Amino acid sequence: MNSVYFDHNATTQIDSRVLDAMLPWMRTQSGNPSSRHQFGRAAREAVAQARAQVAAACGAQANQVVFTSSGTEANNLAIKGIAGYQAAGQILYSAVEHPCVSRSAVAMQAHGYQALSIPVDSQGKVDATQLAALLKQPTSLVSVMLANNETGVLQDVAGLANLVRAQGRIMHTDAVQALGKIVLNFNELNVHAMTVSSHKIHGPQGAAALILDKRLDIQPLINGGGQERGLRSGTENVAAIVGFGLACELASQDLAHYQSHTLSLRTQLEAGLNAMNAVIFGSQAARLPNTSFFAIDGIEGETLVMALDRKGYAVASGSACSSDSTEPSAVLLAMGVEEDLARGAIRVSLGTQNTVQQVAAFLQHLQQEINRLKQLSAMAA
Amino acid sequence: MNSVYFDHNATTQIDSRVLDAMLPWMRTQSGNPSSRHQFGRAAREAVAQARAQVAAACGAQANQVVFTSSGTEANNLAIKGIAGYQAAGQILYSAVEHPCVSRSAVAMQAHGYQALSIPVDSQGKVDATQLAALLKQPTSLVSVMLANNETGVLQDVAGLANLVRAQGRIMHTDAVQALGKIVLNFNELNVHAMTVSSHKIHGPQGAAALILDKRLDIQPLINGGGQERGLRSGTENVAAIVGFGLACELASQDLAHYQSHTLSLRTQLEAGLNAMNAVIFGSQAARLPNTSFFAIDGIEGETLVMALDRKGYAVASGSACSSDSTEPSAVLLAMGVEEDLARGAIRVSLGTQNTVQQVAAFLQHLQQEINRLKQLSAMAA
Repeated sequence: MNSVYFDHNATTQIDSRVLDAMLPWMRTQSGNPSSRHQFGRAAREAVAQARAQVAAACGAQANQVVFTSSGTEANNLAIKGIAGYQAAGQILYSAVEHPCVSRSAVAMQAHGYQALSIPVDSQGKVDATQLAALLKQPTSLVSVMLANNETGVLQDVAGLANLVRAQGRIMHTDAVQALGKIVLNFNELNVHAMTVSSHKIHGPQGAAALILDKRLDIQPLINGGGQERGLRSGTENVAAIVGFGLACELASQDLAHYQSHTLSLRTQLEAGLNAMNAVIFGSQAARLPNTSFFAIDGIEGETLVMALDRKGYAVASGSACSSDSTEPSAVLLAMGVEEDLARGAIRVSLGTQNTVQQVAAFLQHLQQEINRLKQLSAMAA
Repeated sequence: MNSVYFDHNATTQIDSRVLDAMLPWMRTQSGNPSSRHQFGRAAREAVAQARAQVAAACGAQANQVVFTSSGTEANNLAIKGIAGYQAAGQILYSAVEHPCVSRSAVAMQAHGYQALSIPVDSQGKVDATQLAALLKQPTSLVSVMLANNETGVLQDVAGLANLVRAQGRIMHTDAVQALGKIVLNFNELNVHAMTVSSHKIHGPQGAAALILDKRLDIQPLINGGGQERGLRSGTENVAAIVGFGLACELASQDLAHYQSHTLSLRTQLEAGLNAMNAVIFGSQAARLPNTSFFAIDGIEGETLVMALDRKGYAVASGSACSSDSTEPSAVLLAMGVEEDLARGAIRVSLGTQNTVQQVAAFLQHLQQEINRLKQLSAMAA
């Protein structure tokens, strides 16, 4: 596939150094980390090393890391596992959360909890005053993502966590889109739990982690042999965990370059988008450096994504996480964007492999496609 | 590591053909299967192909396959997801189930269900009469494994499923240890749900599946973007799923050879064990061809495993799934084995890479270690 890949918030290519670190665990006999023989011990040590690498990238300690198979699983563990230990009250989550957070909260309603979303402003930021008001009711858990997967908008998680802690409540943040893109420090965020994932940072699919305050009580989502201190049973995916560990280390080393490179490309991109009178969502808020979520009035996003795909550009219409849905982005609706404009949304999420030339050529093709689609639409009218 | 690997029921080496099939998904930019662009479509098609391969190996249809990250997760999904849809009654499971089944059942007690184990006889086989008696009480789900991970003993799952269905109840079987070792046919087993896993059949860690009767109602364990028909959300682990698919196909092709090769080695092994007056657990029952679980009176299993490891043989003391435990095997205790003898248990689980020479040399080393340990023990006494 020769397309230009502009969909790094959906998934990323495994770094060749990461794959090299994984291959010994896939090419030769490797052990089950629970086995006591030398194969098992070697696997256990590899998992321990990766645990330290993930912890370091998150500003946490190794014994705070619980490995899971995906960010979605880690978010389910956080919402269901933490709330499950608390008296049944509200589970509060921002109106722009990934569905694995919001739907986990809704699933807990079967057990007597109330799932309630916290409104966001036109830039997609949680309203601290509204959160403070909501916290007056008995609250089992609050979950606010650090960086939005569609808009890239950053939340003041540390500030919100202060509000939550002041009421003696528990705070989780989904930092899947933040890891590797901004400085990430579990302790400074002041949360009780934080989710990170491998395949968004040039690690393999199949590994993620929930970082936990060690004093926090939490129930497992998956019971069994008692791996991960009993919090997540199942044979560890050793190769994927090893890859995740190294991907974390590399992402930390590369962070400054990543930020300057992707921000420079996005600035170039958005200058072009502004010239096309595009609406760039969340652009007045602090955002991830690599993400631009925009719409052109009168153009349907899904149609444009397919047209750009044929031209050789892989972009997204909203998140990749609900492909079967043709509904407009729930994130944009929560931000008060009109449904028609929301249907036009396109997400470009850049990576370090992307270039100035790719962005320039993309802008040209985008302009051509917009012209073509507007003509078609004028002819149909 | 130059050790001889005799622990194939714990995990297996990835077949080089499987790894070759996985590598394109790890070496180049691959997409999120939920993405609509060409990278996403290619990933989606690869997952669909693997789904058909897994279904074929299980005697099922592709649309009955729900991919998960591990057999443990699939068993949790089965127990919690199926029972969760039923009125709260008993969850019955055999006394020799893997802890991911029994502990999932116990976890459901918090939601009003009763977890109850079905006794087994001295060979580890479920007593059908006792199951029939238990089924007179309201029953949400019955789960009986097809092949035991420690003893290799096979259950008459189809016969038990008839009893369960006659009462209008639902039957699940954990077939993780059966896939690739015996003929497996979902329809003939007559169950509503069946668990299989990749890394036990020379596929990668990180992929498994729950095979489902399409008419069965089931709740997801992991909510989110709605992947796997809403039954298991989270970005698919494409490379692992591709590997699992091919591993299933290869295991089906290789089954006759696998059975004759491992059974021949086990016969050789057990002839030697009988000469040492070992007790071979479950040997009067039909068993997997590759598994031998035995004890020598007066020898502690854990000590022997470590001694054999130093000699270059990777064997297990019971299952690999509870390494932190020094308790005797719960499977053996359920079979009525005396605690002292159970503490001596050693599991050898063979694979096609193992040879006559390896088994012969192992028997020699085993005899030496037993003599040495008995001398030490006599000196200490």
